[in-house]
Amino acid sequence: MKKSLGPKTIIYPMPVLVIGTYDINNKPNLMTVAWGGICCSDPPCVSISVRKGRQTYDNIINRKAFTVNILSEDMVKKADYYGIVSGRKEDKFSRTNITPIKSELVSAPYGKEFPFVLECRLYKTIELGTHTQFIGEILDVKAEESILDKSGNPDIEKLKPFFYDPSSVYYFGTGKMLAKAFSAGKEI
Amino acid sequence: MKKSLGPKTIIYPMPVLVIGTYDINNKPNLMTVAWGGICCSDPPCVSISVRKGRQTYDNIINRKAFTVNILSEDMVKKADYYGIVSGRKEDKFSRTNITPIKSELVSAPYGKEFPFVLECRLYKTIELGTHTQFIGEILDVKAEESILDKSGNPDIEKLKPFFYDPSSVYYFGTGKMLAKAFSAGKEI
Repeated sequence: MKKSLGPKTIIYPMPVLVIGTYDINNKPNLMTVAWGGICCSDPPCVSISVRKGRQTYDNIINRKAFTVNILSEDMVKKADYYGIVSGRKEDKFSRTNITPIKSELVSAPYGKEFPFVLECRLYKTIELGTHTQFIGEILDVKAEESILDKSGNPDIEKLKPFFYDPSSVYYFGTGKMLAKAFSAGKEI
Repeated sequence: MKKSLGPKTIIYPMPVLVIGTYDINNKPNLMTVAWGGICCSDPPCVSISVRKGRQTYDNIINRKAFTVNILSEDMVKKADYYGIVSGRKEDKFSRTNITPIKSELVSAPYGKEFPFVLECRLYKTIELGTHTQFIGEILDVKAEESILDKSGNPDIEKLKPFFYDPSSVYYFGTGKMLAKAFSAGKEI
């Protein structure tokens, strides 16, 4: 029996995306968003939703670029911090001992110590209501060699990404491998 | 040391969203997408990316509505099946013993046996390239009572959602609780 919960913004899983940007004075900033994901294969694109009024909103509008950093579960407190504090008040890179590296491809920084990053140039800006969706064209993906497998592909067991549960308001880690995609369904 | 992987469409985690639609003959269909997520709070919206040529693409254009169903990990083979087979060739509801229920709010079906569903009316259609992003306004969320906690909120430990790893091409379950959001970061 289904129960109506009303028009809530709940979905599983929600990613924990740490967005890197520069302000007009070249101060690097980080902000965590849970609303976003890959949205096109050609051009390769990722979308993120940001409210007007955020430092990150202004920075993306001005620089037309951002990075999307994925953190490992041992960095969960940092990711949470980036979502709580405004870049107008604090230098979030230095406060968390993360080194800002300027992307060679776009006008945005990423974290040297972060294991996985997408470098994006602004492709489309879509006004939705309270939130603006920024769609970035992915110009490159960079990953720490320590999280790659022998074939040079990201290894989830090494990366140890985590996600956000909007109902309990907790972060959860990666669980057990369940089934091979584009394969398990053939048994139906 | 970071290694360049090129402009790949990899992010962690990717959701496994089962999209319910009707075709012009009222035949219900299901299709799995891994590209989508919540994108606005007011109006409450969810985005999904679909290629032209898919049955689901035509159905959303015609009906201006879709449902987003989240499955439990014991349904992972069904979710994979919905992503492999075309609704033009098979009746995916009946093949997987799922009962189509017509939403009372929008012109789209959801699965009676699925634990969690968003009912959406088409709000915006954004052409990105190979993929079209459909943004749906969430009119209601419905959940099986069996996955709710005592306060009536979805309980992730009961729902047991899973996600997709585009690098290994495997589905993974929910892991252990790591930290409280909007709280753990205050310890920085």
